[in-house]
Amino acid sequence: MQDVADRAGVSLTTVSFVVNGTKPVAERTRARVQAAMADLGYRRNVVARALASQRTRIVALVFPALEHGLGGAALSIVTAAASAATRRGFNVVLWPVTGADQLEDYVSGGLADGVLLMEVTAQDPRVEVLQRRAVPFGLIGRTEDVEGLSYVDMDFDAMLATGLDHLVGLGHERVALFVGDLGTTAPAGYGPVARTEAAYLHETAARGLEPVVVRGAQDPRSGHRTADELLARHPEVTAVLALNEAALSGFVNGLVAGGRSVPDDVSVLGVATSAEAVSTADPPVSAVVAPGHDLGSRSVDALIDRLAEPTAPPLRLLLDGELQPAGSTAPPR
Amino acid sequence: MQDVADRAGVSLTTVSFVVNGTKPVAERTRARVQAAMADLGYRRNVVARALASQRTRIVALVFPALEHGLGGAALSIVTAAASAATRRGFNVVLWPVTGADQLEDYVSGGLADGVLLMEVTAQDPRVEVLQRRAVPFGLIGRTEDVEGLSYVDMDFDAMLATGLDHLVGLGHERVALFVGDLGTTAPAGYGPVARTEAAYLHETAARGLEPVVVRGAQDPRSGHRTADELLARHPEVTAVLALNEAALSGFVNGLVAGGRSVPDDVSVLGVATSAEAVSTADPPVSAVVAPGHDLGSRSVDALIDRLAEPTAPPLRLLLDGELQPAGSTAPPR
Repeated sequence: MQDVADRAGVSLTTVSFVVNGTKPVAERTRARVQAAMADLGYRRNVVARALASQRTRIVALVFPALEHGLGGAALSIVTAAASAATRRGFNVVLWPVTGADQLEDYVSGGLADGVLLMEVTAQDPRVEVLQRRAVPFGLIGRTEDVEGLSYVDMDFDAMLATGLDHLVGLGHERVALFVGDLGTTAPAGYGPVARTEAAYLHETAARGLEPVVVRGAQDPRSGHRTADELLARHPEVTAVLALNEAALSGFVNGLVAGGRSVPDDVSVLGVATSAEAVSTADPPVSAVVAPGHDLGSRSVDALIDRLAEPTAPPLRLLLDGELQPAGSTAPPR
Repeated sequence: MQDVADRAGVSLTTVSFVVNGTKPVAERTRARVQAAMADLGYRRNVVARALASQRTRIVALVFPALEHGLGGAALSIVTAAASAATRRGFNVVLWPVTGADQLEDYVSGGLADGVLLMEVTAQDPRVEVLQRRAVPFGLIGRTEDVEGLSYVDMDFDAMLATGLDHLVGLGHERVALFVGDLGTTAPAGYGPVARTEAAYLHETAARGLEPVVVRGAQDPRSGHRTADELLARHPEVTAVLALNEAALSGFVNGLVAGGRSVPDDVSVLGVATSAEAVSTADPPVSAVVAPGHDLGSRSVDALIDRLAEPTAPPLRLLLDGELQPAGSTAPPR
């Protein structure tokens, strides 16, 4: 940095004060140092600006470093977040960080102005770290207790209602719900499955419909088995809402193997299904598609807004999905 | 940093050497400085360190900002790249940048020490920008002319041979190749399809087998139609190598709809198929799985090595896929 000091006519120590923000420097001197850095085509101009403004214009996207830890909508969340940040003149950095301690290390490095948490769990220990460090942050998803937190999540109630309206509008009166079987790991009442199931029970009751809920693990084989069980125990069902993306192809094949035509005998409608899963299924499955793109872009926009207005109230945004018909639903026979 | 120096009982200059890595410091002294920093809860200012060292320890991952621009292996490439960077003390920043001009803007900002290009095309205009700016970079994929460039790509020849060996080992003598129909956009002889097709023709000839190549667009409906055509024109085929992930589910359904059992009548083996597509297919499809994880991690490792050794020769690394049997291949009847 000696060349900067020489050109600005100040000491190396003064340049360091400006660059590191360690001691106050007179405004005119600071301007002279910064002009010298600009004149010299100082390579690290983003970095120098970051130091001068105490802002890096970097937001971090935090997700667990698990081989199979990311859901179907993850790619569109990540790419949409990066595009939204670009539009605002920010960069997105990826932090594949599993534990709260490791997150604390990253946050303390000071690289990111703000943090977005993906794959949020009911009692997420990462939240406490970010609160203690006083780092602006938002959730893509929701903890069980969202008091004081900003989040953008899918509106599972609205997606379920959108799907049920579509099927009831076609004339179906026996509409089952197929959800992923999560075992006992999630707290009662929390998470996509519990939210969707509660909404299903509420919405079917409001319409005077008899509820049927079937469960299966999140893989194609289990989906096939669940279809077998549904046909054996509830042959009267003419339509299914499916919140179990990984099992969906097997579920449809199970119905067909059981002698049912899709959609003529049984309509199948995915709920919160990723756009990727919908586009590669055969036969194509109609779905209320998960708003992965908007989850990414709205989260980034909200966080950047918060950086500018730190005292704004927390944002709580729930996003509906879009009904994409693809031929797997039809009126009942 | 004076407080750190006082506590560690060393000079400010020594603290600076430790923090910036500019000069070697005795291991015991380094440990004392680091302990003092930890004791004082020193907020490691990565930005200040970056400015001092002329290194940000950030690598940029560049991909086109297209809604549907990323292939099936993209998520595992991105997450593996981020994890590999973390292990080396680096951060990965995402640049959803479509044109060469926009990339030049980003590079000139100086945020990234090095750049990795995804979704590489035959004549990729981004390469010239990076060469002109003298930024260390690597390709995930290959341009047509790779003279002087570092790349990590899938070894399509090896994956094809691995798949063919598996099928021939089961006793098949009539093995077809099903590839995506790309129209006339790719230069002759370039890209995954052309490479795989050339390898198929070469490998079948070497084994005295008659080649059959069928093509279809990259969606399930087209896969179904391609299966219809194959059964009509080449009923003698007992096994298929499929390099068309998006069409795979439809292709298998087309065979079944045509009265063929998979694998008893026709074996189907995916080539360069993403792990995601394999795990959600029903029935499960055996495949030579694309090395998405290794593409991400090896690319990052190679780029970080290059930052330390700028004069090292370019790395040219081709990665084979792994055969994952899942029940869709069997000996011919």
